[in-house]
Amino acid sequence: MTPKAEILCIGTELLLGEITNTNAQYLAQQLARLGIPHHVQTVVGDNIGRIHHVLDGIVPRCQLLLITGGLGPTPDDLTHAALAEYFHVPLVEYPGLWQEIVRKYQQRGLTPSPSNRKQALLPQGSQVLANPSGSAAGIIWSPRPDLTLMTFPGVPGEMERMWQEGAVPYIQQQGWVETVLVSRVLRHWGIPESVLAERLGSLLDNENPTVAPYAGQGEVRIRVTARAPNPAAAEALLAPIVAQVQALGGEDYFGSDDQSLAGVVGSLLRQRQQTLAVAESCSGGGLGHLITGIPGSSGYFLGGVIAYDNRIKTALLGVSPELLAREGAVSEATAIAMAQGVQQRLGSHWALSITGIAGPGGGSPEKPVGLVWIGIAAPTGQAWALEQRFNPQRGRESIRHFSAQTALDVLRRTLQRL
Amino acid sequence: MTPKAEILCIGTELLLGEITNTNAQYLAQQLARLGIPHHVQTVVGDNIGRIHHVLDGIVPRCQLLLITGGLGPTPDDLTHAALAEYFHVPLVEYPGLWQEIVRKYQQRGLTPSPSNRKQALLPQGSQVLANPSGSAAGIIWSPRPDLTLMTFPGVPGEMERMWQEGAVPYIQQQGWVETVLVSRVLRHWGIPESVLAERLGSLLDNENPTVAPYAGQGEVRIRVTARAPNPAAAEALLAPIVAQVQALGGEDYFGSDDQSLAGVVGSLLRQRQQTLAVAESCSGGGLGHLITGIPGSSGYFLGGVIAYDNRIKTALLGVSPELLAREGAVSEATAIAMAQGVQQRLGSHWALSITGIAGPGGGSPEKPVGLVWIGIAAPTGQAWALEQRFNPQRGRESIRHFSAQTALDVLRRTLQRL
Repeated sequence: MTPKAEILCIGTELLLGEITNTNAQYLAQQLARLGIPHHVQTVVGDNIGRIHHVLDGIVPRCQLLLITGGLGPTPDDLTHAALAEYFHVPLVEYPGLWQEIVRKYQQRGLTPSPSNRKQALLPQGSQVLANPSGSAAGIIWSPRPDLTLMTFPGVPGEMERMWQEGAVPYIQQQGWVETVLVSRVLRHWGIPESVLAERLGSLLDNENPTVAPYAGQGEVRIRVTARAPNPAAAEALLAPIVAQVQALGGEDYFGSDDQSLAGVVGSLLRQRQQTLAVAESCSGGGLGHLITGIPGSSGYFLGGVIAYDNRIKTALLGVSPELLAREGAVSEATAIAMAQGVQQRLGSHWALSITGIAGPGGGSPEKPVGLVWIGIAAPTGQAWALEQRFNPQRGRESIRHFSAQTALDVLRRTLQRL
Repeated sequence: MTPKAEILCIGTELLLGEITNTNAQYLAQQLARLGIPHHVQTVVGDNIGRIHHVLDGIVPRCQLLLITGGLGPTPDDLTHAALAEYFHVPLVEYPGLWQEIVRKYQQRGLTPSPSNRKQALLPQGSQVLANPSGSAAGIIWSPRPDLTLMTFPGVPGEMERMWQEGAVPYIQQQGWVETVLVSRVLRHWGIPESVLAERLGSLLDNENPTVAPYAGQGEVRIRVTARAPNPAAAEALLAPIVAQVQALGGEDYFGSDDQSLAGVVGSLLRQRQQTLAVAESCSGGGLGHLITGIPGSSGYFLGGVIAYDNRIKTALLGVSPELLAREGAVSEATAIAMAQGVQQRLGSHWALSITGIAGPGGGSPEKPVGLVWIGIAAPTGQAWALEQRFNPQRGRESIRHFSAQTALDVLRRTLQRL
C-alpha cells in the first residue's frame, strides 16, 4: 500500500530566511516521481518543544515522514533527541557508527571532537541510514507499526545521496511504490508561452500523460508526465505524446531535459567538424562563458573577442571607424562586421556577434535599452544580422542573458536548416 | 505587543516540487528584520479540507498568519473561500475591487473573463490588501480579536510589493514592532571560513549584535546583526562591532552587503581613472561577464580576448608557440604572456589573464584538474602570475567561477596596496 507522506524541515536558519528550502523541493519532486502522495510540508526551528508540537499535527496525518536537518554535532542539532523523546525511547550509542565517524575523520587527517560522539547516538530500535559523504548519519525508524520516519542532514548534497542510495531502495523493498511518474521536459526558445500553448491546443487537457507549459528566463518548457505501474509502461505512454509536442513545437523546440542551447549547438558543430568564434559587446563574455560551460567545447570553440570599447572593435575586429561613426556600435552593419572580423582573424567556420544596449543607461528614443543586434557569419562567406528588442524592464542581466542565448539559437536554427 | 507569526504557503505546485518556495524565505527574512518571532512554516495544496486541517494546528499557535498563493481566477484558487468557510463568514463581492480589476484589464487592452469576478469575492469583514501590480488582491483580516490574517498572491514580485506597501505599514500602525533587526554582511575572499572564524575569536559569542560566519561559492561572509528598538539604535550597536570585524578581516575583507568583487574593482579603477583588459582561457568569457555585469563598466573596461584554442593565444595575444610548447598553456609563463599580450594590444593600464584546467578531462599528475594560473600586468610594465589549486571535486563550473573571482581579487589587492 502506498503511504501518505509529509516533509518536515528542521532548522532555525530556514525561519530566519538565511537559506532557501531547496531540500523540500527536492524531496517533493522525488515523492511525485515515485507516485507517493504528499499533502503538507512543515518547517520548524531547532527547538524540542516546537518540534513536538508540530509532530502532534503531522504524525496522525501520514505514514511516511521525511525529516531534514538537525543531525550535526553542535548543541542546536537535536532532531534525533527530539524524536526519541517524542516516542518515549532512549537514545543509545551505535558503536559501528562511532567507528565509522572516527574513520572518516582520520581519512581527512583529522580527529573527531567529543561533540561528534553525539552523532553516534540514535533512537533505540532505529536503523542507520548511512551518509556516504558526511559524518551525520540518518535513521529509518518505525516507532509505531503504521509510521516510518526517515532523517537526513540539511546539507543538500548529503541528503540527496542518502535519499537515492538508502531511502529509495528501502521504499521499493517495502512495496510502497504502486505507480511511478516519469517526466520529459521539452525545451523551446524564441516563442512566447501563450503562442506555444495555443499550438498545443487540447493536448494541454490530456490526463495521462499530462502536458503542462511553464516559462522562465526566456525559455518555454513543456513538461509531459506519465503515471504508470512501472517506468517502462510510463515511457510507452510518454512516447506518442512527446512526439506530438515535438512536432507542434517545430523549429522552436531545441532539446529535452538537460540539453541546453549551448550543448545542442556544440553537438551540431561536432557532427559537422566545424569551429566557432564569437565577438561580444554588451554580453561582455557571457556568450563565450555559456559555450565553454560544455565539457569538451575546446573541440569546436576557438575563442573570441570581448569588444566592449569601440576602439577594440576597430583594433581587434577590423570594424572601420567610419562604419561605427555612421551606423553606430549597435547596428546591423556593425554586428555583421564584428562577426566577419572575428571569423577572419580566428579562422573559424562560423562566427557569432552581439552588440546591444543592456542598460540601465545608454538608451535613446531610436536605440532604446533592450535593442540588441545579433550577427552571424557562415563558412560560405555569407553574413547577416537579426534585430532583437528585449523588454527593458527585465533589467541588465536578463537582457545580457537573453542576448547570449538568442545568439546560440540563431546558430542552432541555421545549422539545423542546412 | 509583538505577535507570534506563522507562514502558510498554499499551492499544489509546491508539493510537486515544481517551484522553489522563495516566498517563505522572503517573508521569513522580513519578519526577522522586524523582530517578529516566527516558529513554523507550512505548505499545503489547493484543497479546502487540507487547508482547514493545517489551520487547526496553526491558528492556536499564532497571532499573525501570513498566507501566500491561491488568489487567482482559476477553479483551484480557493484560499479566500477556504478561510471564509473556516471562520464561518460568507464571501461577499467588493464592488470597488471588481471595478479596479476591470480597469486594470482595460489598461492592457483586455476584457476580464467571468472567472476574474471571483477575485472580487472576499470574506465579509476583511480589508482589501491592494495589489498594485496584478489582479489578485489580498486581505488583512481579524476573524477573531487575537488573530490577524494577511493573504498574498504566489507571484513573488506581486507578493513582495504588497508586503512592503500594504502589510508593513499596517504592522507598524498596530504598534507590533517593538524591536528591529539590522544586519550588515561583511564579505571576504581568499580565506577559509575556519581561519577567519579563529581570527574573530570571542566576537562569535557576542550576543547583541550577533556575529555569524557562513561560506559559499568561495566567499566567506560574516553577518553582524543588531536588535534594538529602532533602526538608529541598531546602527549605533552595529558600528563598533562592524569596525572590529573589518579590522580582523584585514586584506581579506573586500566589501559589505551588495558590494561584489567586480564592483569594488570597478570603483578602484574609476578612482584612479585607469582601464582594464582581460585574456581568458578556461574561464571562457566568465571574467569579462562578471566585470561587465556592473552598470557603467564601459568607463574602465576596454574588453578582452577569449583565447580558448592555443592558436588564438598566439594569433591575438602574441604568446609564442615555442613558449606554449616548452611551458604548456597552463603555466606561469603563459599566464604572464597572455596578460602582457592583451595589455599591449588593447592599450589598457591593467590586464588580467586566466589559464587553467577546469575539467572534467584534461588533467595530468603534474597539472591536475583545478590547477589555474592567474596573470596580472601593471601600468608600470611589471607582470606576474599566481598559482591556484582548486579542489577538482568542486566541478567545472565552480572552478571557472573561482578562477574569475580570484583574478578580480588579485587586482583588488594590488590596487588597494598601491
